[in-house]
Amino acid sequence: MNTELIFCVDGGGTSTRARLYSSTGAQLAEARAGSCNVSTDPLEAAGSVTQAWSACAAAIRHDAALLDGVNTVIGAAGTLPPKSRAIFDAALPAFGTCEVVTDGYAALIGAGGGRPAGLIIAGTGAVGHRLLADGRSIRRDGFGWAGGDRGSGFWIGRKVLRHGVRAIEGLIVQTDLSRLLFDRIGGYAGFQDMVASLRPNHVAALAPIALDAARAGCPEAQGILDGAIRELAELVGLLDLPEDAPLYFNGGLAEALKPGLGARIGRGFDAPQADAVEGCRLIAMGQAPREITAAVGYPDPALVEGGKAERVGE
Amino acid sequence: MNTELIFCVDGGGTSTRARLYSSTGAQLAEARAGSCNVSTDPLEAAGSVTQAWSACAAAIRHDAALLDGVNTVIGAAGTLPPKSRAIFDAALPAFGTCEVVTDGYAALIGAGGGRPAGLIIAGTGAVGHRLLADGRSIRRDGFGWAGGDRGSGFWIGRKVLRHGVRAIEGLIVQTDLSRLLFDRIGGYAGFQDMVASLRPNHVAALAPIALDAARAGCPEAQGILDGAIRELAELVGLLDLPEDAPLYFNGGLAEALKPGLGARIGRGFDAPQADAVEGCRLIAMGQAPREITAAVGYPDPALVEGGKAERVGE
Repeated sequence: MNTELIFCVDGGGTSTRARLYSSTGAQLAEARAGSCNVSTDPLEAAGSVTQAWSACAAAIRHDAALLDGVNTVIGAAGTLPPKSRAIFDAALPAFGTCEVVTDGYAALIGAGGGRPAGLIIAGTGAVGHRLLADGRSIRRDGFGWAGGDRGSGFWIGRKVLRHGVRAIEGLIVQTDLSRLLFDRIGGYAGFQDMVASLRPNHVAALAPIALDAARAGCPEAQGILDGAIRELAELVGLLDLPEDAPLYFNGGLAEALKPGLGARIGRGFDAPQADAVEGCRLIAMGQAPREITAAVGYPDPALVEGGKAERVGE
Repeated sequence: MNTELIFCVDGGGTSTRARLYSSTGAQLAEARAGSCNVSTDPLEAAGSVTQAWSACAAAIRHDAALLDGVNTVIGAAGTLPPKSRAIFDAALPAFGTCEVVTDGYAALIGAGGGRPAGLIIAGTGAVGHRLLADGRSIRRDGFGWAGGDRGSGFWIGRKVLRHGVRAIEGLIVQTDLSRLLFDRIGGYAGFQDMVASLRPNHVAALAPIALDAARAGCPEAQGILDGAIRELAELVGLLDLPEDAPLYFNGGLAEALKPGLGARIGRGFDAPQADAVEGCRLIAMGQAPREITAAVGYPDPALVEGGKAERVGE
C-alpha cells in the first residue's frame, strides 16, 4: 500500500477533532464531530470518526469509500476496556492502516513532539502518561470515578457533595462552599432531586463550585482543592519522571490547580508544543513511537493489558 | 367515604410486597410485584403498585376499578425528590385515600409497632430513622451514593475498588482482598471492562467481596469494614436516641456488621416485631403516626422538605 493520505483524530467524550494531511504532512482539511468515548458508546465513537472522515474527504473531493491509501491514527477516550474496544475496531471504516492509541498518549506526543516527557490530565477524570527514552510509555490511574481518577473533577465534586451533606446534618456550620452549593442546585429540594438521579459526570460538574468558593476565600473549599492537589502529586510521583524531562498539565482543572500542584511537587509545567491531533500525525509519519505500554513500577506485568507489556530491564 | 379495604405496600428497588386487609385489619390477600423506586423510575414504581393492587383485588374478587373505599398506605424507596414524587403520585390509581411514606419509616413503624424507636438501614445505601415520643420523626443521611450513604454497600464497594487500584499501581502489596477482587471480576481486563461501564449499584455489589475477605482473615478488608462501622456509628449518633428506646438494624449488611457496630456504640439491637407492610397497616388504621418530619438537630428547619418541619420546642 502506498500512503496517499494521513487521517488523524483526537476523540474525546465531548467532541471529536480530526485533520487530514498529505503523505508529506501538509494539512489538507479539518473537521469536527460528536462524542468519541469508546468505552461509553463504541458505535457512536466509530460513527464520529466516520463522520469526520467523510467531511475531510469531501473537503478535498476524495471519494470517502477509497480507504486503501489512508493511514489513520486515532487517539480516543476509553480505548482500554477490551469489550467495547473490539466493537469500536469492528465498526471503523476499513482504512489502509489504522492505529488506535489512548487520547492521553496522543496528547503527550503532541505536547512533547514525541520526545520523553510526562503529562498529567485532570478534568472529569484524572490520568498520567509518560513516554520513556526507549519509546515505550506508562500510564497511571485513569481507573475511573469509583476507585480511581484521584484528584479529578469527580473527586472534587464528591467532596463538595459530602461537605453539603454534613452541613445539612449540622455536623459542620454552613460555609461559603455549602451556601454556594445550595444556591446553585436550588436548595434542599434541588439537592434531593439531584442526588436521586446523579450520574458520575454530574458529580464532576460540581467541581467548579469548589473552585469558585476557594477563589472567594473559603478555607473549606481550599482544603478540598489542597486534597486534590495532594492526590495529583501522588499521580505525578507514579510517573517517576526524570528531573530534566518536560511535564505537561492538561484538562479542565489544569489552570486552576497548576500553581498549587507546582508548589507541591517543586517544579513547574512546560507549555505544550502542539495538540493531540498533531501527536497522531507524528505517530502516523513515524516521527514518534506508537503506543507500547510498559509495566515499569507495576508489581505484576500481567496487570498491563495486551501482553505487550514488559518490565524495563527484563 | 367508608373504608372497606386497607391496601398496604412496601416498595423497594428490587421488589414490591403488598397486602390487602379488611377495615378491621384482617389479612385478605397478598401480592408481589417488580421494582418500586420512585426516584429511579416513578412510572415503573406506580406500575408496580397498580399491579400489586390488581392482584390483591382479583384474589378476593373485588373489582380493581372500585377504589373509593380503599384506604392505601405506601412505603416506597426514593420518595423524597419532589419531581419524581409528583410523577409517581399522578400515576397511582385513584384510591379513596393514599398516604405515601418513605420505605424506611414504614420499616421503623413495623419494627417498633409504632412506638418510639430508632432504625438503621445499611444495604446499597444507608439511612437512619427515629420516631419521637410526640409522633414526629427524623431521618438522617440517605443522601445517595455520591455524597451520602455513609457506611453503605456503595461506601464499602468504593473502598474495595480503591484498594484494587492501589494494588495495581504497586502502592500496596497484593492482599487477600485485592486477589479476591481480581479473581471475581476477571483480572485486569475484567477490571478495565468493569470500571468503564460502572454504575453506582454495581459498586455496591462489590461489598460482599470485602465481607468474604474479612471472614477469611484479611486485615485490609476488616479495616474497610471497621471504617463502615465507624460511619454507621456516626449515623446512629445523628439519631440522638434515648438509651431506653429500641434500636433496629435492617438491610443487606446488617447481619455482618451487627457485632462490630454494637460493640462500637455500646448497645445491642432489638429484633423487629414485624415488617414494613405491617408498619403501613398500623399507619392506615391510626395505630401509628403518619410520617411527619421534624428538624431536630438540623441547623436550619428550611432544609427539611415540605414546610411541615418544625424544630422541637419551638
